[in-house]
Amino acid sequence: MSVISATSQSALYASRLNRVRDEMQRQAIDATLLSVGHDLPYLTGYCAMPLERLTMLVVTHDAPATLIVPRLEAPRVTAHDEVFKIVAWGETENPVEIVAKHLGRAKKIAIGDQMWARFLVELMGFVSGASFARAVDVVGAMRMIKDAAEIAALQAAGAAADRVASQLQRGEIALRGRTEAQVSADISARLIAEGHDAVNFAIVAAGENAASPHHHAGPRVIQNNEILLCDFGGTMNGYCSDITRCVFLGEPSRKIMSAYSVLRAAHSAGVKAGVVGATCESVDAAARAVIDDAGFGDFFIHRTGHGIGMEAHEEPYMVSGNKLPIKAGHAFSVEPGIYLPGKWGMRLEDIVVATEAGPLSMTHVDHSLVILS
Amino acid sequence: MSVISATSQSALYASRLNRVRDEMQRQAIDATLLSVGHDLPYLTGYCAMPLERLTMLVVTHDAPATLIVPRLEAPRVTAHDEVFKIVAWGETENPVEIVAKHLGRAKKIAIGDQMWARFLVELMGFVSGASFARAVDVVGAMRMIKDAAEIAALQAAGAAADRVASQLQRGEIALRGRTEAQVSADISARLIAEGHDAVNFAIVAAGENAASPHHHAGPRVIQNNEILLCDFGGTMNGYCSDITRCVFLGEPSRKIMSAYSVLRAAHSAGVKAGVVGATCESVDAAARAVIDDAGFGDFFIHRTGHGIGMEAHEEPYMVSGNKLPIKAGHAFSVEPGIYLPGKWGMRLEDIVVATEAGPLSMTHVDHSLVILS
Repeated sequence: MSVISATSQSALYASRLNRVRDEMQRQAIDATLLSVGHDLPYLTGYCAMPLERLTMLVVTHDAPATLIVPRLEAPRVTAHDEVFKIVAWGETENPVEIVAKHLGRAKKIAIGDQMWARFLVELMGFVSGASFARAVDVVGAMRMIKDAAEIAALQAAGAAADRVASQLQRGEIALRGRTEAQVSADISARLIAEGHDAVNFAIVAAGENAASPHHHAGPRVIQNNEILLCDFGGTMNGYCSDITRCVFLGEPSRKIMSAYSVLRAAHSAGVKAGVVGATCESVDAAARAVIDDAGFGDFFIHRTGHGIGMEAHEEPYMVSGNKLPIKAGHAFSVEPGIYLPGKWGMRLEDIVVATEAGPLSMTHVDHSLVILS
Repeated sequence: MSVISATSQSALYASRLNRVRDEMQRQAIDATLLSVGHDLPYLTGYCAMPLERLTMLVVTHDAPATLIVPRLEAPRVTAHDEVFKIVAWGETENPVEIVAKHLGRAKKIAIGDQMWARFLVELMGFVSGASFARAVDVVGAMRMIKDAAEIAALQAAGAAADRVASQLQRGEIALRGRTEAQVSADISARLIAEGHDAVNFAIVAAGENAASPHHHAGPRVIQNNEILLCDFGGTMNGYCSDITRCVFLGEPSRKIMSAYSVLRAAHSAGVKAGVVGATCESVDAAARAVIDDAGFGDFFIHRTGHGIGMEAHEEPYMVSGNKLPIKAGHAFSVEPGIYLPGKWGMRLEDIVVATEAGPLSMTHVDHSLVILS
């Protein structure tokens, strides 16, 4: 991701846009609209500000792709003239009306997942009789399959996250007597120091808080004789890391040790199942079977994983019901967990890329429940 | 915002929800759907995670408000049983289908501005024949008028931002020889140190970069004899700060000094115009007239201000065409700017709350172009 010339970037975006148009044709979609979210930078290199001023890429079949952007944000756009036109709108114009004009007589319109709903509500006033689809069905299949440069970026981000996890496991991050929030801030600073451009999250959950999978690191002071769950990741050169490791402060009970060995086996089974040709749900099933068999089934309350790439969560999802076959280049988390409400929780997570040679892990640091005595 | 009991919080949310239902009645809206964004915490205290798992509050006339939330995020919700019911959905359920069931036969549905468009696209498959409106027209007017506790929170956040701006003006933040990105990180850390819970942005733009109003602080090294524009803010106890000050490193030219005196007069005129009963656009007009008269009209390329509260940008907007009359409790930025492409830019910004006694500023630090020699 380092030294790529503007020309080769233009060529990359142009080729991706061509494939989007091919896919639109196959699905009889007349126009694709992309705003906030990562489909836009994937196709143009430009990331829309998540604010009330609309930025929108309009892709149709019979006109150049057009990036409609607030005038005061136009200087932020790196032009790729062969890929898209830029139309800057002024503060007293209605950008939705401008989008509608560029849509021509489009009847079936694909909408970016994370576009603010207000713009779709407003657009409906301009395009009566149109029907809407999700742009993820147009762009997503392409974005899911990472090329060599994207896999290298995921590896670099994973290696940086690994280094922070290793600092945690070696006891280099002070824990006892500090709050979850302090440790979360410390981990965040270390993610940046190790090369991330942004921190996406740094969950630090102590003891009973670890039973809430999306716990917000708070004022709870970390104490002796409890488990600490750390799930953190960021974005580095445009691609995301995501890792979960647990440590135990003091001497874990036999119940904790035995639950952790179940978790580790479930994680390993999930990773092994992530082979080209298997379904996404089979990764979930493989991890879940181990936990079910050990009697913890009721305490594994989320899917086994999510796709990852430019976004921390993206397709494909490793969840029961998702029969999508895994392809080479699919990147996803494998992160089973066991959560005993009011008592403790544990989760173990790596990012895996499916390859023809088998699952390739982006993170490698010690998978055991490291004991910090 | 400090010591409020759960009971009084419940009463506050219940009263706000009642007013939402009254407004829905007036506009013949059958249901309001709120997800990501700040209408939801304003009405329930709960902030949805901006992820692919749907969180949605369904407000109708004939049933209790219902918060539909991913099961693994349910532990994050503070219950207010008299205000809303909680329905947790499991990983293999379709949350949009659950939302649709709670909508009953609703035909006119108001949609939160920042809800991910994918959920509206999916919902359209369940509620054929429904029409959609923007929830900002239901909740926004109420949220715009800040009560005493909210104004106190804005003042506290403003005072914290003031302290960081003062550090900048006193030369306590190293500038020369550092990159914009380094100074941005430094300002961010100081916002947190002064009491903010999160940093929303810290624009640092040197010299010609200051001509891009939404410049992203980058690798550009700050040098002598140039202007430095700093526009930063964060969230503290749920309410936002936002301030812009410029400093000059070295000896400014007469052209810069004279442009800055125009800018300062424009800012002052904008603040003075922000009185109860005046229109929002008149604030913009007052600031713009000063800049126009001085011949810089073409270089003031954005509206004069935006509302602020729980969100960094919210209604009302101080922009030509907005004839909304200012009411006591409206909080908004006044931030005229002058931008000479390729050369330099300058902006001056305070947050102002309209009161019966006149405009009340949330930030007070020196308004001059402080010279750091």
